[in-house]
Amino acid sequence: MIPKFSVSKFGSKFSRQTGIGQLMEDLANLEPGVCMLGGGSPALIPEVQEVWKEFLSKLAEKGSWESILGKYESPSGKRETLEAVADLLRKESGRSIRTEEIAITGGSQNAFYLLLNFFSGTYEDGSKRRAVFPAVPEYIGYIDQPLEEDSILPVPSLVRETGEHTFRYELDEASLQRLGESAEPLGCIVLSRPSNPTGRIAGEEEIRKILSFAEKKRIPFLLDNAYGFPFPGIVYSGDNRWFYEDGMVQSFSLSKIGLPGVRTGFVLADPKIVSSLNKANAVLNLTGGSLGQYVGLELFTSGAWSSLSKNVILPYYAEKRKLAFSVIEREWTGKLRYQIHESEGAFFLWVRFRGLSKSLTELYSVLKKSGVVLVPGRYFYPKSEVNDPFVDECARISFARDEEELSEGLSRIGKVLAEYSE
Amino acid sequence: MIPKFSVSKFGSKFSRQTGIGQLMEDLANLEPGVCMLGGGSPALIPEVQEVWKEFLSKLAEKGSWESILGKYESPSGKRETLEAVADLLRKESGRSIRTEEIAITGGSQNAFYLLLNFFSGTYEDGSKRRAVFPAVPEYIGYIDQPLEEDSILPVPSLVRETGEHTFRYELDEASLQRLGESAEPLGCIVLSRPSNPTGRIAGEEEIRKILSFAEKKRIPFLLDNAYGFPFPGIVYSGDNRWFYEDGMVQSFSLSKIGLPGVRTGFVLADPKIVSSLNKANAVLNLTGGSLGQYVGLELFTSGAWSSLSKNVILPYYAEKRKLAFSVIEREWTGKLRYQIHESEGAFFLWVRFRGLSKSLTELYSVLKKSGVVLVPGRYFYPKSEVNDPFVDECARISFARDEEELSEGLSRIGKVLAEYSE
Repeated sequence: MIPKFSVSKFGSKFSRQTGIGQLMEDLANLEPGVCMLGGGSPALIPEVQEVWKEFLSKLAEKGSWESILGKYESPSGKRETLEAVADLLRKESGRSIRTEEIAITGGSQNAFYLLLNFFSGTYEDGSKRRAVFPAVPEYIGYIDQPLEEDSILPVPSLVRETGEHTFRYELDEASLQRLGESAEPLGCIVLSRPSNPTGRIAGEEEIRKILSFAEKKRIPFLLDNAYGFPFPGIVYSGDNRWFYEDGMVQSFSLSKIGLPGVRTGFVLADPKIVSSLNKANAVLNLTGGSLGQYVGLELFTSGAWSSLSKNVILPYYAEKRKLAFSVIEREWTGKLRYQIHESEGAFFLWVRFRGLSKSLTELYSVLKKSGVVLVPGRYFYPKSEVNDPFVDECARISFARDEEELSEGLSRIGKVLAEYSE
Repeated sequence: MIPKFSVSKFGSKFSRQTGIGQLMEDLANLEPGVCMLGGGSPALIPEVQEVWKEFLSKLAEKGSWESILGKYESPSGKRETLEAVADLLRKESGRSIRTEEIAITGGSQNAFYLLLNFFSGTYEDGSKRRAVFPAVPEYIGYIDQPLEEDSILPVPSLVRETGEHTFRYELDEASLQRLGESAEPLGCIVLSRPSNPTGRIAGEEEIRKILSFAEKKRIPFLLDNAYGFPFPGIVYSGDNRWFYEDGMVQSFSLSKIGLPGVRTGFVLADPKIVSSLNKANAVLNLTGGSLGQYVGLELFTSGAWSSLSKNVILPYYAEKRKLAFSVIEREWTGKLRYQIHESEGAFFLWVRFRGLSKSLTELYSVLKKSGVVLVPGRYFYPKSEVNDPFVDECARISFARDEEELSEGLSRIGKVLAEYSE
C-alpha cells in the first residue's frame, strides 16, 4: 500500500493541471485524424530540414559528436556559441554587446521561469511585487511560472475594431500611466513580440513607452522575441525592427526556426542578470543540452539564421496564413460572428467568436471530439482577469500545419461552432 | 547608464555563487595543462563512443532526426522511451512497473530541484518541513536546490577507521532513531547510492532501515542512482543490488553511462508524484530535450545499457581506481596524513587530509595555481553543518581521467599539500 505523501505548497501547485501542461500533453498525444491547430509547434519545412542535415554532417566531420553527447558544457554556455550570439546581436543592434551579456538557457520557457521569479514575488525588504503584463492576453506559458500566488498584474488591452471581421489590441496607455503614478512597487514588465497568442506586433513607439514606464519604476522590461527578431523573423508587417536598450532583458529561442527538440534559448541582459541566470542554471539543471549549442553555432556562424528566416520561414508561414484566411472567408462567413486580430506576426490567429451559447473552454472538448484542437483563449489571461468579455469568446488557432490539415481543421471549427451560434 | 534592479529573494539567492556553480564553471573553463580531478564528468571511453556512433547512424537511417530537432516531445516524455524504461526496471525489480510510474526529466539535477521542493519547505498547513540527509556528506548539487532557507536536516555520518589509510562512514542509527521519535514533521529523506561524494554504497539492510524510518514518518525516500544501479553500475563491491519498494522515489541518469550532454534522467515513483513532475516540467521547461529520449530508447531496447555497464564502464573505472591507489601509495605515503573512504562505487575518492595548516577550501586556489583541481569537501555539507572537523579536512577527487592526467594530478596534490602538512 503506497502512502499518500504530503507535499509542499510548491508541490501542490503541480498536482493541478496547468494551461501549458494540458496544451503540451494534447499536442503530443493526438488521436489520428485530429487537426491540431492548437499547439505552438513550428512546421517541419523541407528546406529547413535540409539545412539541419547539412549541419549534422558537418558536426560528424568535425568529430563534434563525442563532445555533444559525452561532455558537459559550462552552465554559462559554450564559449563559441556565446560569441556567435553576441556577434549576431551586435550587428543587428549596432551596440557593443559582450558575451557576458548573453545567457544560454534551456529554451525561452526555462529562461522565463527564472526571470519571472527573479523579478516578482517577495523581495528582501519584505515587499511583494508583481510582474506587469501590459498587453493582456499574453503567453500561456508565463501564467503558471511565478512561484507565489497573485504575482501577475494584468493590464487588459484596449480593443479597436478595424474592419467587419478584424480588430486590433492597443496598449491602454491611460491605465499604464495610472499604474506608473501609483505607489505600488513593481517587479518587472513583460511582453511577447510578436504576441503569442494574438500575433500583434508592438511598434517601436510602444516599446519605447513601455521602456520609459520601466525606467520610471526602476524595473526591467522583459521582451520575448521567440517568434520575432532577429530570428525566426515571423513578422508580416514590414516596418518593424529589432533594437536593444539598457534596462531591457530580451529572450530568443531556437524553437521557432525549427529546432524545438533541442530546448535552447538565449537571453540578452545586463551582465549581473546573466550571471544570476547562469548560477541558477547550474543549480536547476547543472548545465544546458549540448546539441542546441552546437547546432546553434553552425546556424549563426554560417549566416543560415538570416537566409532561412527571410527566404524560407517567413514566406512559408505567409503562404499558410493566406490559405487560412481564404478558408475562413469561404467556410465561416455567414455562419459565424467572428473577428480576427490583425495578423502581424507569429503563426497564430487570435479569433473572437461572438454570440456562442457556450464558452470556448466548454466547447474545447466538443471540438476535440469533432476532430479539431484549438486553444481556448482563457488560458492566456492571468487568473485575476475575469471580467473581460473576451476571455470566453476567444481562441488561438495555429496555421503552422499541412495545407490539408489546416483547411480541414478550419472547416470543422466552422461547422461545430455554427451549431452553438445564436 | 544601466539601472540596478531589485531582485526577489529567489533572485538574490542566485546572485551568489554556489558550490555546484563554481564546480561546473571550473570544469568547463580549464587552463591548459591543469589536471581536472574535480568534476563529475564521466570519461570518454572509446568503446562507449563507438556505440553512440552506431546509435546516431541508426537514428539517421530511421529518419528520426527530423523529429529529434523539429518536434516537441510531450512533457511526460516520449511514449516508447517510457515503455523501454518501465520494461527495464520491471525486469530488474521483478515488480509490475507501469509507464505512469516513470517521469523523464532534464537530468537528475533537474529532477531533484523539483523533488526537493515538492518535499520540503512550507506546506499548506503552514508547517515548515526539512529534507533529511541521513548520511552527510551528501551530493553538492542538492545543497542549493531548496527554495527556502534551512530546508535540509543533516545527520552526520559516523566514522569507522578500517585501516591505516582507510575509513568508512556508517549510518548514525541512534540519531536517526531520535529523529524518528521527535515530533518534528519532516518532508523527505534523501540518499545517493553510491554516494557522491564518498563512493560509499549503503547496503540493502541500511536502505531498508531508512525506508522504515520514511514509512514511520510518512515521507518519501528519495534515492539517487546516478552512478549506480541499474546503469551505469559503477559499483566495485559485488554483493549489492538494486531494488524498489513502495514509498521510494528513485532517480536515474544517462550522464554517467557517457551521455551528460543530452541532459536526460528518469524518475521512478508513485504515479501521482510522476504526474506532478510532468506538470512541473511543462511549466519550467515546456518539455525535455529529444536527443536523450531517442538515444536512451536505443540504449534500452538494444540491451547495450547492460553490456556497456558491465563489460566496459565498470572495468574501465576499476582500472583507473587501481591506478589512483597505486599513485597515491607511491606519492603520498610518508608525506601526508591521509585517509581514504572505502571506495565502493562511483569514480571519486573521498580523502581526509589530517594535520594541514590551512583548510582545503583555502588550499583550493593554491592547488589550482599548481595545476590541479579537486573539490573541497565543505561543499558537500549543508550550511548548517559547521562543527564536523571533517568539513575542512576532506576533498573529493575524481579518477575518471586519462592515465597521465590522473597520475600527474595526484602527484601534484601530494607535493602541494605536503608543504602545508604539519
